[in-house]
Amino acid sequence: MKKNVLGIDIGGTKIFHAAVNENGEIEGGVKKENTPKTSKEIEDKLIQIINQYDVDTIGIATAGAVNLENNKILSSTANLPSGYADINFKELSKKDIFIENDANCAAWAEYKMGAGKGKNNCIVLTLGTGVGSGIIINGTLLKGKNGAAGEMHFKMSTDKKRKCTCGAWDCFEIYASGNGLKLTYKDLTGDGISTYEIIENAKNGDKNSQNAVKIWNEYIAQGILGLNNIFDTEIIALSGSMVQFADVEFIENYVNSYTVTTKTSVKLCALKNYAGLIGAALIAFDLRKLSIKSLREKF
Amino acid sequence: MKKNVLGIDIGGTKIFHAAVNENGEIEGGVKKENTPKTSKEIEDKLIQIINQYDVDTIGIATAGAVNLENNKILSSTANLPSGYADINFKELSKKDIFIENDANCAAWAEYKMGAGKGKNNCIVLTLGTGVGSGIIINGTLLKGKNGAAGEMHFKMSTDKKRKCTCGAWDCFEIYASGNGLKLTYKDLTGDGISTYEIIENAKNGDKNSQNAVKIWNEYIAQGILGLNNIFDTEIIALSGSMVQFADVEFIENYVNSYTVTTKTSVKLCALKNYAGLIGAALIAFDLRKLSIKSLREKF
Repeated sequence: MKKNVLGIDIGGTKIFHAAVNENGEIEGGVKKENTPKTSKEIEDKLIQIINQYDVDTIGIATAGAVNLENNKILSSTANLPSGYADINFKELSKKDIFIENDANCAAWAEYKMGAGKGKNNCIVLTLGTGVGSGIIINGTLLKGKNGAAGEMHFKMSTDKKRKCTCGAWDCFEIYASGNGLKLTYKDLTGDGISTYEIIENAKNGDKNSQNAVKIWNEYIAQGILGLNNIFDTEIIALSGSMVQFADVEFIENYVNSYTVTTKTSVKLCALKNYAGLIGAALIAFDLRKLSIKSLREKF
Repeated sequence: MKKNVLGIDIGGTKIFHAAVNENGEIEGGVKKENTPKTSKEIEDKLIQIINQYDVDTIGIATAGAVNLENNKILSSTANLPSGYADINFKELSKKDIFIENDANCAAWAEYKMGAGKGKNNCIVLTLGTGVGSGIIINGTLLKGKNGAAGEMHFKMSTDKKRKCTCGAWDCFEIYASGNGLKLTYKDLTGDGISTYEIIENAKNGDKNSQNAVKIWNEYIAQGILGLNNIFDTEIIALSGSMVQFADVEFIENYVNSYTVTTKTSVKLCALKNYAGLIGAALIAFDLRKLSIKSLREKF
């Protein structure tokens, strides 16, 4: 059996891939490709990537909820072309291929070797255009009955203030994401400007922009308080493109001031851009072991 | 080893106790006592109850969060006398005594033999003066890092509309509980009347009361939608004194119309008043087995 696993992270604009060893270390560097525009081209690209590596097992981090057998995407995926969710990943190669939701992969990597290392209960939130999450309970990924668990779509208001991308109103995602910051600024000023502009203006002393960032942090803290009351978790680790504007210390203090369970810690994630790729590979290592074990038990 | 376990459910006004067999069946009927007014008297009462039964293992359902070793209450308990949380349950008898939070016990009983039977992922909500919950994930009770998980204190508003009993604002509990119904009626009319009056008036055709009940059901549905998005659970089962006013069909339809995970079912609990007692006994059966197993592994 080959020692390493190939980890692939399929994003809306880039595909990352690398050989990963059982300790989660990348061997030989990460390669990056542009994500093709059609699902057929993505399939071809994946086959081409897989053929570059001398491995018997592949772990793929993907957008969308993934089923309990780690071979099928359950839901449509907004940032990827139509037909993508129907790709039969298992048929891309005769090698063992396991897929998992990218936020779950990132959470698994943080749990195994990042901010959540040694903590059997942790939640990893990815704050970007939307909000992703992976939840670890007693050292196991929370998947739910079909594999779709961990969606950060719980209400922050009952007053139909903000329509969420999911079709419902006022989900945590539409408050804690980059879009959430934009809408918070718009609530304050009536103006619709980009996240980038808000951040730049805040740095240059604009009070409305600074206030929008402050309120956006309060929304994040309020949502995380609810999560800690539900999960009594050891750590909530934050990542994603928006995380540089999160006031981690404020959020932790807020949560621990109000929690009715027990105090938690709020930290930045440790692994940055390659958490998805590394997590996919580490999950594939575990699933390979499980499938060998179940084969041994069978014969 | 004795076959049955003694199950005890310590409530704010009554203590229930009964012998329970491994199938969760009550043998010889349930006995009821008034809950004494001081923690010392409760201790004495428990010793007296325990001495009535020919068992070697006792399971106790109690208010308050319970630690991972099932022997200590972590938090203060509003409906029980001061000093109650400090009772050393293990010292009440030389028999094996295991305690667990009452909402967790009720959830475990519903999972093992009630509305959640055969469903490895379920959430049981108790709608009463407050809101309790027990959450089962892959056939295991969600306890969190210290045992306090499952608190239904996640925000329904960011606008500081309703102060919750926990000290924070606008938790699900202060919307979905009996108190939540009272405050909903007060929002509509400015008047503070009892839950009982609201329900009576609604039955007699009062539009404000009917509307309050309708909005209260919407709040419950909105909160449960969030829970299904986080957990992708198989069933959400409702119990408690307020559940008779819950519109289960409406709630299920609402949740399944908006969920971003997969459809769930919303049902009434099956076991009624003795779920806590039965669940405590069933948990004690499991913990007795575990402790025998770990002893065998040790020696």
